Amino acid sequence: MNLLNDESLLSHDRAHAQADAPLYERLAAHYRRVIASGTLAPGDRMPSVRALMSRHKVSLSTAIQVFRRLEDGGWLQARPRAGYFVRRPAASKLATVAEPDIPVLPEPARYVGLHERISRVIERAQAFPDALNLGGATAGAALYPTERLQSLASRILRHKPTLLTEVGEDGGAAELRQAIAKRALTADVTVAPDDVLITSGGVEAVNLALRAVAQPGDTIAVESPAFFGLLQILESLGLRALEIPTSPTTGLSLEALDIALTACPEIKAVVAVPNLQNPLGCVMPDTRKAELVALCARRGVALIEDEPYRELVEAAQPARPLKSWDRDGGVIHCASLNKALAPGMRLGWMSSGRWHARVRLLKFAQTRHNESLAQFVAAEFIGSGAYDRHLHRLRDKLRVQREASADAIGRYFPAGTRLNLPPGGLLLWVALPDGRSSDALFEAALPHGIRIAPGSIFSNSERFRSFIRLSCPVPFDERMDAALRQLGRLAAGIA
Amino acid sequence: MNLLNDESLLSHDRAHAQADAPLYERLAAHYRRVIASGTLAPGDRMPSVRALMSRHKVSLSTAIQVFRRLEDGGWLQARPRAGYFVRRPAASKLATVAEPDIPVLPEPARYVGLHERISRVIERAQAFPDALNLGGATAGAALYPTERLQSLASRILRHKPTLLTEVGEDGGAAELRQAIAKRALTADVTVAPDDVLITSGGVEAVNLALRAVAQPGDTIAVESPAFFGLLQILESLGLRALEIPTSPTTGLSLEALDIALTACPEIKAVVAVPNLQNPLGCVMPDTRKAELVALCARRGVALIEDEPYRELVEAAQPARPLKSWDRDGGVIHCASLNKALAPGMRLGWMSSGRWHARVRLLKFAQTRHNESLAQFVAAEFIGSGAYDRHLHRLRDKLRVQREASADAIGRYFPAGTRLNLPPGGLLLWVALPDGRSSDALFEAALPHGIRIAPGSIFSNSERFRSFIRLSCPVPFDERMDAALRQLGRLAAGIA
Repeated sequence: MNLLNDESLLSHDRAHAQADAPLYERLAAHYRRVIASGTLAPGDRMPSVRALMSRHKVSLSTAIQVFRRLEDGGWLQARPRAGYFVRRPAASKLATVAEPDIPVLPEPARYVGLHERISRVIERAQAFPDALNLGGATAGAALYPTERLQSLASRILRHKPTLLTEVGEDGGAAELRQAIAKRALTADVTVAPDDVLITSGGVEAVNLALRAVAQPGDTIAVESPAFFGLLQILESLGLRALEIPTSPTTGLSLEALDIALTACPEIKAVVAVPNLQNPLGCVMPDTRKAELVALCARRGVALIEDEPYRELVEAAQPARPLKSWDRDGGVIHCASLNKALAPGMRLGWMSSGRWHARVRLLKFAQTRHNESLAQFVAAEFIGSGAYDRHLHRLRDKLRVQREASADAIGRYFPAGTRLNLPPGGLLLWVALPDGRSSDALFEAALPHGIRIAPGSIFSNSERFRSFIRLSCPVPFDERMDAALRQLGRLAAGIA
Repeated sequence: MNLLNDESLLSHDRAHAQADAPLYERLAAHYRRVIASGTLAPGDRMPSVRALMSRHKVSLSTAIQVFRRLEDGGWLQARPRAGYFVRRPAASKLATVAEPDIPVLPEPARYVGLHERISRVIERAQAFPDALNLGGATAGAALYPTERLQSLASRILRHKPTLLTEVGEDGGAAELRQAIAKRALTADVTVAPDDVLITSGGVEAVNLALRAVAQPGDTIAVESPAFFGLLQILESLGLRALEIPTSPTTGLSLEALDIALTACPEIKAVVAVPNLQNPLGCVMPDTRKAELVALCARRGVALIEDEPYRELVEAAQPARPLKSWDRDGGVIHCASLNKALAPGMRLGWMSSGRWHARVRLLKFAQTRHNESLAQFVAAEFIGSGAYDRHLHRLRDKLRVQREASADAIGRYFPAGTRLNLPPGGLLLWVALPDGRSSDALFEAALPHGIRIAPGSIFSNSERFRSFIRLSCPVPFDERMDAALRQLGRLAAGIA
């Protein structure tokens, strides 16, 4: 298939339901896919403006806008007098984070005792409210469609003023459940609107999923490192965590999970973040996703999939969730709009397979239905072409921010620093050399007005004490550059 | 103190922070308090228009507006050629619901097994979506300040467009926590804004409170009858309920609670709704509230106070929550704006005494912070005089609706029907005569387009099977009258 001609562009567009986007946006999206799929590789020369005009029968100004969008998005690089070339990914000079060892026997499952440590970290950070926050996992408001959502909200309120004063719908607004079910189709997930349950962010979804499948004292297999919020949920529910080694490139080790499931038949569930794992940033290859679903089904263990970041993955095709391989309702799929669309709307959702009825009871008894207005705003935005256009821009901006930050880390951090540059999102997982303490770096950075996330909060063990999670929430500017230079200096000075 | 002169009116007004209300509103509020306090009793003649003009130095038109407001609110009744008289409460012709027996030994604590029964009731009702819903506990949108909230929301969004796209504040927006802490002062509760935690409705607050003080398998003392949502929470958390007889006039029986605490030292907490108990509608006298707090403190048992309805109580002074007697942090106070201000905003809050830190962890791990916009809208509305004006109107309208419904029940229901007419809210608790089955009445009413709440869902026992909870959510009109007539006929025909 020739990806560079008109026909394929149009068919791609149909598939991505972006028919209402301006022509230059559609063409730019087309070339992003061409580059992401490898048809145009890093260093390749981009077809000329003239070639674009004749190939796609567009005007000069449209062709120029396409180039501008791609350059702004960091996909192309202009070389004076030579034309445009596909940009090489940056930061390749740093070695990637090492793969974990797979022990013959798993560690024992343990109750989580992290909340105090995490609270101390948060409390310390709050003493420096003006610090540049590189310790969070949410992009700045400037990366989200703030004005569009605001005007949508006002318009919807004018048309449905009783949204604030009428009891909402159990399970969530039908409009939003429908929009989510429809969009799930693009990721090969078939789910009925009635199977979608709207939650207060992805956190509540994971919480409900765990309550549905486990009782206090039960054991849950989790990735190591894992999002500290998940470990706090386990702690708050009195569940034991069994940490499974997780590859910074291919995700949860299926080999290690297999060993753990054999050694500990009391494991009730596995929680995995297959797309842009937090903090590693890795995306599980599809073959391994399918294997994970099959393994859990074979062992009769619930598989809880947490994916706040899936829409941020850069790939030629939408990244697939584990749920798309689920045949017997054994996967509880938890997702959220916090990272992809609007951190302030607190919207998550879940599709709970064979635990649907129990999850509905738990949700009803826990928080009833969600606040209505945000649901209607999200339904309308997701249902329109605007959502895909926003996501394209968001992914582009985040890539530029990630790469610039990774470049700066390569320049400023001590030799031996290792780093994963993930295919999406805003998180970098950085290994400090020579076992330097990231807790010490966290403490040293605060008085310099810089907040980071120390590796110690991502595991119930001590094993990530010389890692840090750095986010790239805002456009890379002098303040970011200076902060990373300062961090590098501080890291060099730490034992 | 002469309540009828200018000075006391002004001082009252200061206390109620309504200085910005129009003069006739302030005067009407003054006379409502005079009537509620009994200074002007039912049947008393209201001072004349002329007397009002000279006493308060107001114009004829202002005086007339005062009379109109009081008449609309059902406080006064015009008698042709005789003037205005304080209205007698209606429905006095029905006997009140009988007081419960206080057994010498409590029933055993039992796990709650109500969810299926409740689900069946809800599912059956949903098959008749056009039915007049007298089974809910929320007033219709017309009783809430829909337009005002809508325009507030739009204005706030214009000024703070990033509310939708920025991460909210842990624990809730400072503005709302402050507004709530300030308002709590009017009910003799001193709480710092930092002690207030914003939740997803009152349901989440009670949920968090129970999770903070109890583990699965523990026993919780609850009122009998109790709000079915509370029983569902206990069921979802694997807690046992010990039902304490509750008086339809004075609330939770302290005698029975004392017996239960002696017989079952394993009781971890008591949950009580002291103001407008659901479904009974009773308000605990202040002396008993104080005794309940002291009893729980003496016994070392957590006291969880659920009060979605406090602001709907009609009394000369704001009704006091149990929390106002708490001296050692043993009371967890849970409240909500769902019934008083805006059912669609899903805002609740809690003040957790000595469990504050644990409740914060649980909330963070359960749903993080709330959606932001509704919090800012509520903060602004509560902080203004508009909230008190809205509550006056809401209470007036609900009283008229309650009394008209109670009148109609007296006219149409079979002889021997008993009824509580509560001092606020929208719920009537009705005892059918001769042990008629309310489940049968529920079923019989649906095909006639009428939905009620059968007593069977308000207890883990069978003891309320011939009770129904009827709500008065909308202005009494021909449809309501016809529905109650039909219900009466059906009740007469049931064995």
